[in-house]
Amino acid sequence: MPGANPLLRDRFVDFLLHEVLDVAGLAGLPHFAEHGRETFELYVGACRRLARERLFPSYRAMDEAPPELVGGRVRVHPAVGPLWRELAELGVLAATRPAAVGGQQLPLTVAALAHAYLMAGNLSAYGYVGLTTGAAHLVEAFGSEALRATYMAPMYAGRWSGTMALTEPQAGSSLADVTTRAAPTADGHHLISGSKIFISGGDHDATENVVHLVLARIDGAPPGTRGISLFVVPRLRPSPGGLVPNDVEVSGLIHKIGWRGLPSVALALGDRGDCRGWLVGPPHEGLRCMFQMMNEARIMVGLNAASTASVAYLEALAYARERTQGRPLAEKDPARPPVPIVAHADVRRMLLRQKAIVEGALCLLGTVSRYADLAEHGASEPERARSKLLLDLLTPIAKTFPAERGFESNALALQIHGGYGYSSEYLPEAWLRDQKLNSIHEGTTTIQGLDLLGRKVVAGGGAALACFREEVLGALAAADAAGVEPAACAAVGGALDALVALTGALAQRGLGGDVEGMMAHSADYLEAFSLLVIGWQWIRMWAAARRLPEADPFARGIERAARYWLATELPRIPALAALCLGPDRSYLDAHPDEL
Amino acid sequence: MPGANPLLRDRFVDFLLHEVLDVAGLAGLPHFAEHGRETFELYVGACRRLARERLFPSYRAMDEAPPELVGGRVRVHPAVGPLWRELAELGVLAATRPAAVGGQQLPLTVAALAHAYLMAGNLSAYGYVGLTTGAAHLVEAFGSEALRATYMAPMYAGRWSGTMALTEPQAGSSLADVTTRAAPTADGHHLISGSKIFISGGDHDATENVVHLVLARIDGAPPGTRGISLFVVPRLRPSPGGLVPNDVEVSGLIHKIGWRGLPSVALALGDRGDCRGWLVGPPHEGLRCMFQMMNEARIMVGLNAASTASVAYLEALAYARERTQGRPLAEKDPARPPVPIVAHADVRRMLLRQKAIVEGALCLLGTVSRYADLAEHGASEPERARSKLLLDLLTPIAKTFPAERGFESNALALQIHGGYGYSSEYLPEAWLRDQKLNSIHEGTTTIQGLDLLGRKVVAGGGAALACFREEVLGALAAADAAGVEPAACAAVGGALDALVALTGALAQRGLGGDVEGMMAHSADYLEAFSLLVIGWQWIRMWAAARRLPEADPFARGIERAARYWLATELPRIPALAALCLGPDRSYLDAHPDEL
Repeated sequence: MPGANPLLRDRFVDFLLHEVLDVAGLAGLPHFAEHGRETFELYVGACRRLARERLFPSYRAMDEAPPELVGGRVRVHPAVGPLWRELAELGVLAATRPAAVGGQQLPLTVAALAHAYLMAGNLSAYGYVGLTTGAAHLVEAFGSEALRATYMAPMYAGRWSGTMALTEPQAGSSLADVTTRAAPTADGHHLISGSKIFISGGDHDATENVVHLVLARIDGAPPGTRGISLFVVPRLRPSPGGLVPNDVEVSGLIHKIGWRGLPSVALALGDRGDCRGWLVGPPHEGLRCMFQMMNEARIMVGLNAASTASVAYLEALAYARERTQGRPLAEKDPARPPVPIVAHADVRRMLLRQKAIVEGALCLLGTVSRYADLAEHGASEPERARSKLLLDLLTPIAKTFPAERGFESNALALQIHGGYGYSSEYLPEAWLRDQKLNSIHEGTTTIQGLDLLGRKVVAGGGAALACFREEVLGALAAADAAGVEPAACAAVGGALDALVALTGALAQRGLGGDVEGMMAHSADYLEAFSLLVIGWQWIRMWAAARRLPEADPFARGIERAARYWLATELPRIPALAALCLGPDRSYLDAHPDEL
Repeated sequence: MPGANPLLRDRFVDFLLHEVLDVAGLAGLPHFAEHGRETFELYVGACRRLARERLFPSYRAMDEAPPELVGGRVRVHPAVGPLWRELAELGVLAATRPAAVGGQQLPLTVAALAHAYLMAGNLSAYGYVGLTTGAAHLVEAFGSEALRATYMAPMYAGRWSGTMALTEPQAGSSLADVTTRAAPTADGHHLISGSKIFISGGDHDATENVVHLVLARIDGAPPGTRGISLFVVPRLRPSPGGLVPNDVEVSGLIHKIGWRGLPSVALALGDRGDCRGWLVGPPHEGLRCMFQMMNEARIMVGLNAASTASVAYLEALAYARERTQGRPLAEKDPARPPVPIVAHADVRRMLLRQKAIVEGALCLLGTVSRYADLAEHGASEPERARSKLLLDLLTPIAKTFPAERGFESNALALQIHGGYGYSSEYLPEAWLRDQKLNSIHEGTTTIQGLDLLGRKVVAGGGAALACFREEVLGALAAADAAGVEPAACAAVGGALDALVALTGALAQRGLGGDVEGMMAHSADYLEAFSLLVIGWQWIRMWAAARRLPEADPFARGIERAARYWLATELPRIPALAALCLGPDRSYLDAHPDEL
């Protein structure tokens, strides 16, 4: 009964938007002045309906019939085209973009939670949208007027789709090693030649054209990341006689284990010497341009992860309420009828754990989206600067926590379905496959850990961390005022102190020249920081829930999940901190032959 | 290059057998007197070869072409028949069974580690064997002479295969709710009618006949688990004119997400009123009979899990040594060539973590297999009784730790492969799918937690726990004598004390009438106990490795993994213990509407 799954819980999303994230406050900013609760609800409601009525019903069919390579072109599931057009019609592609470029000028906070329904319903169908918005946004931000007119406009309008073509077969995560060439010509374009791999939406037959945003190296550019430029490279390029092929060929189709409605392809650029690319932004600054979009791209991955965990959690909850099996520990009389499995404590544990992960992640994603809104459109320069620091700091966590713990949560959803969960007759296994990509694309978990500890928490001489500390302390004061249990606030406060002290000690180590020692446990540091950050979300939600009637099951559920997280996950921080600082060098010094 | 993967590391398996598990000592027992190091190595070597040369090369093909239901019969991959015959020829089916029934009378300790290669190479191909051995062993142990001659012998000889038909669609884990009927007849057999589901190997075309060991309820039997009997129900029954159909029909084929070379089917028994079953063991004692085989079945699942994690770990290690990408943190110069990813600390962390899980699990499985050997064939009654207590106590952990942590380990193997790991062009994703079943079949993780805390650790008024404590203390004394770091021994000793104290406190709670409070955190208890048990394995291996030359990379690797486990996982125990004893009732009291 896929239709019955709500994908996300409406009550929770509304609670987040209005009780925790104060989107009304955002509507008070000049940039969002045309908006208010009503337009927000209209947009969220429209996405909900589209997700439930159109996207989700196609999910399984798209998973079962992945793209095929036919005569050099990728053929996608026939549902993709119609879904794409409905998404475009709803204005999803330019939801957050300014009215001046045809957008709805919505806060990212609202769009993110609205789009979470679309991702939960059918992450592949949404994938085309996310990639296109990202590509068009790059042209909007850094492209010439001509490029904006030629490429951005058709993408935002939904006539053409877009991709991000960064990765190369030999380079993987190491963008410094990009070798795709761009040879200048006298005609204003460059001739591009090289290979790209894992290009999502890199070819398909659901739109008239595909526009690639390609990283390449202009002849003579310096080596490393400072010699990479950004180009628009369309599959078909406009010419006086209409669109003509631009020497972009599909050299392979990757058989992904999830996201199977969205093709991932290898591209050969310029094999016939006629692949034209147009420079976007200044030469050699392609990576800087790309990185300005990175936060949004990573928030998107985190949202995908949280949404994929959400739909599976709600499926498992519904199953556990209906499926009868066994009897309570204290009443084993076999003459009594079996009980729904939700009556068993360990099943409730698995469900509450999923809830704590899913809703904690969604709250964090709403929070960082709000910082993104304020970083761009905040009322004052100090507010914008502060929000940018917080956004940068929290992005690695907003990307990784939902991906890693979402995978755990998805596995629990499968587990609750028992033997049925291990079959493709039920959906949890498909969502588990989908989820695994999120720890890999847009920067692996390893990369996020290095980014958090090596760059973000030490940024501005600790300014970002200081802002973060103020935010958590502010939330604790508010929670205390709202009547949240003092011991709970104290636990989060203690975890905050521990993380701040840990960060200081590791930064000292790095400043003392032992960068390797500082970074050795970056994965454990990322984990510890995440536990605190999610604890902070749960304290905020608990405080907000205090304003609801005490007997309201929704409010009680929020409090339970908050208590669960603080009791179960927060106490793991001291051991992780000890590991980061401790003497263990077991893997750091290991020779490959010892592994 | 699948052929290059060694599946398990020979050096490690030999180290386990001879340096840690003292299989020579087993050969000193009368039951194993025909054996010695030479015959053990012969058998292990033969299994290694068969696994590498025949089973593993068919793995991917069997995964890609799962069984099909054609005209009411299951058609399996054409590789299954030949592999089955080679396995039978090697004597795998009766490797541990007495010579009197045609077996090789090998210790389970040796057979388990030898068979781990078969499982790592192709767990579906081995699956037919494991199920058949289990079914034949039940007939051997509890069947009449006539049943042994008719059913056991052809199964051990590899002419017929066997299954365990316990689960029913409505009952799942709750065997008390088995409703399959057995109506007595005057002809010595019963007429069976009912439905079974998730029957692995429940039908196929690779052997002449399939023999089901079926749980059913004789008319008039008491309700619950004490009214269940065990029957032999063949697909074809012998008659004077040869084999004739026995009214066992395939009512459905489950589309499993892994183990795709082994069919899982739903069976309809007796739809035409002519399904004959022959009682095995006394009436109403089927579950007791079945449970006598449960330890071995669960060790088998744990072995499957450890093997599946092993093959993926070795694949990831080989990949990490070859795949170049990026540069060390301290030497980012893009003009230098990229390094193999094993040079990155976080990749080494992921590899050492896999090693710690895989080899810790294999050592535990060897250890419980050794207790199983001693429980049956030990030199004295006290030794047999003591070994049985330890076997019973450790079985839930030997089943669950490899399943749960093996899944984590398999996910890390995929992660190390990056974007390639997310495609079915590479094998890690297939092993990840395979692994997920192990937390579900043969008793879910929830069931194992309840079994450990509710039955095993409190068995005999704490006798099992006392034996366990002696074993760990003995290992610590030996490690100390071997020169293992005193702090490491102290850490394991501290964890042991903590677990013993925790168990006492929880048992008190249960004896005081609060069974629900005692059992609320059975999952956390299982986890804490597992961390200690694996720490104990690593201390033993570390001690054994002290006898090797200090510069031997193998010995250094063992020490590194031991240090990693003790530094990273053991310190999690206090927080888990606090949770078990603490006041958190977040999920225990949760109403379903609050989840």
